[in-house]
Amino acid sequence: MYKLNSIIENENINKLISSFRRSPVQINKPHESDAEIIRLSDFRLAITTDNISEEISTGLYDDPYLIGWMIVTVNMSDLAAVGASTVGILITEIIPPNYEEYKLKELQRGISEACIAYNTFVLGGDTNGGKELILSGSAIGIIKNKKPITRLGAKVGDILYSTAKLGIGNAYAVSKLISRRSSAISYKPIARLRESGSLNKYTACCMDTSDGLISTLDQLMRVNNVGFELCKDWENIIDDVALEVMNSVGLPSWLLFCGQHGEFELVFTVPQNQNKQFLAEALLNGIEPIKLGKVIPDKEIKINIYGELHSIDTTLIRNLLFKANGDVNHYLKLLLEYDSQLKLNHA
Amino acid sequence: MYKLNSIIENENINKLISSFRRSPVQINKPHESDAEIIRLSDFRLAITTDNISEEISTGLYDDPYLIGWMIVTVNMSDLAAVGASTVGILITEIIPPNYEEYKLKELQRGISEACIAYNTFVLGGDTNGGKELILSGSAIGIIKNKKPITRLGAKVGDILYSTAKLGIGNAYAVSKLISRRSSAISYKPIARLRESGSLNKYTACCMDTSDGLISTLDQLMRVNNVGFELCKDWENIIDDVALEVMNSVGLPSWLLFCGQHGEFELVFTVPQNQNKQFLAEALLNGIEPIKLGKVIPDKEIKINIYGELHSIDTTLIRNLLFKANGDVNHYLKLLLEYDSQLKLNHA
Repeated sequence: MYKLNSIIENENINKLISSFRRSPVQINKPHESDAEIIRLSDFRLAITTDNISEEISTGLYDDPYLIGWMIVTVNMSDLAAVGASTVGILITEIIPPNYEEYKLKELQRGISEACIAYNTFVLGGDTNGGKELILSGSAIGIIKNKKPITRLGAKVGDILYSTAKLGIGNAYAVSKLISRRSSAISYKPIARLRESGSLNKYTACCMDTSDGLISTLDQLMRVNNVGFELCKDWENIIDDVALEVMNSVGLPSWLLFCGQHGEFELVFTVPQNQNKQFLAEALLNGIEPIKLGKVIPDKEIKINIYGELHSIDTTLIRNLLFKANGDVNHYLKLLLEYDSQLKLNHA
Repeated sequence: MYKLNSIIENENINKLISSFRRSPVQINKPHESDAEIIRLSDFRLAITTDNISEEISTGLYDDPYLIGWMIVTVNMSDLAAVGASTVGILITEIIPPNYEEYKLKELQRGISEACIAYNTFVLGGDTNGGKELILSGSAIGIIKNKKPITRLGAKVGDILYSTAKLGIGNAYAVSKLISRRSSAISYKPIARLRESGSLNKYTACCMDTSDGLISTLDQLMRVNNVGFELCKDWENIIDDVALEVMNSVGLPSWLLFCGQHGEFELVFTVPQNQNKQFLAEALLNGIEPIKLGKVIPDKEIKINIYGELHSIDTTLIRNLLFKANGDVNHYLKLLLEYDSQLKLNHA
């Protein structure tokens, strides 16, 4: 039932790579880590590539500074998820002919400031013309004298954490694409390189929430053959501003976990017997991890919602945007239908 | 006069990167090498990114197999130019919603077969929807126990070589976009990783001809502060099929050096006192380098054409496609006007 291929995105990726040979020095298998991990002499190389196109074409990102910030952040977040230190990034920019000079400057400023924030560097790149603005980044990191972190390693009983409260990515999407707010809420996520570097030795498995919490947990479930149960007081793991957005538009707050526009926090598990040390070290490093829940034996994502512990149909939720052909309003309608079913089951 | 910024492409790149800090472990400066070279513990990392978008949107590449082959080849060629061994490649695919399944399969087959040809691997990637098909690749290589090759190092008196005869890239463009031939000539360039690995120790500087010979020589001229003079019998350095295409459409054959669609050969210089050893080692390795000409003190690109040794206006030629706003027919018209001037000067 819980095959990787039940998720349309996974299936598409598997189809694309089916004819490719695998490198003998690559440590991870497909879907098993946020960045690819390569064995090289006395250390490991972490490399990842991520592009920003649909976020621009749908209007989700229209601030060039944000686009520049994000192309660095999305790639650094993948490095953080595997516990790598950043070496730098290559950036490809497809720029339409009518793209204004001041916007290009803002875009480059976003890239530049993100690089400073992460103490990293643009190592090179490529530009080309095209019909629409598209940015593509490839980040390089190294993992030395420590084990790489992959998405594998979650064990029943482990505690599930994130690096901060969640929901701001999807709340931003709601404020930008759905609600009639005069202005969108501010959105400038930070890749958790610092946190990953500090807490690395305690994390059994890790993945970033670039596609939202449910996508993250569902993928971790599929590769680890375990499930996750969120804390009963899960509203406390939602960012305050995100919660306020949902209240103001009258949408159920748990939908912040469903949406595919994430917040780039790290979600990871810590074995129970290491939990005290982990929390102490986090405190020492000024990091406040958020306890999300626990790892359970049943391969399900369970949330206590509408007065009952529901097993969420995460396959349905992850495939919903494909089924809605990317139409955000139709997607929300389908999501609300699923929410109604959960309510109904209870009533 | 011969500033890097006289070339619109260089100027655009410099503008884009002007606000970026430079990595302290990056060995090359901007424009000084085909791939970026990074110092890491006991070896150097070579990384590069290159995308294919305009070649698709202009109709130059419409065979999905070729597109797949090329996204690997263009990136491997950059690794070859710096003398790196390939570790692998990350590939981002922007795929329009109506892109047919069989085309996608052909595209992936092109990628897969190119990887086998270069004994390399797709390490990871990313896919996304978009208005037009765009492929972007980032290749990773290592340079161990030998010096990296950059574009710097050409000295007056050095001999100028390429890994094979030139012109097939631009001849393909002519057959595809300009002539009324029933079918385009075949085009499937090979990144010269093998040749680079064998001849590495003799090459003083190196650059691939991804943008055609004149762009390559012009860029090498600007970063080395030397010039180049082609052999008097330069028609012998042109590929036979390429020559035939030009003859059949009545275009001057030297325009095969001007066009911006290259053949991905390596152009490099060898010091005169190492020339014999170089040729012997090439022979041993079954490589037949083509002698193009020599390095001269004047910062000019000189070609013996229409009965006279002309200093070619390479700034004009390199900027011509920008001036023609990418319109290939207008570009050719401007190029032929320049050709007429050369003829006229002689008459």
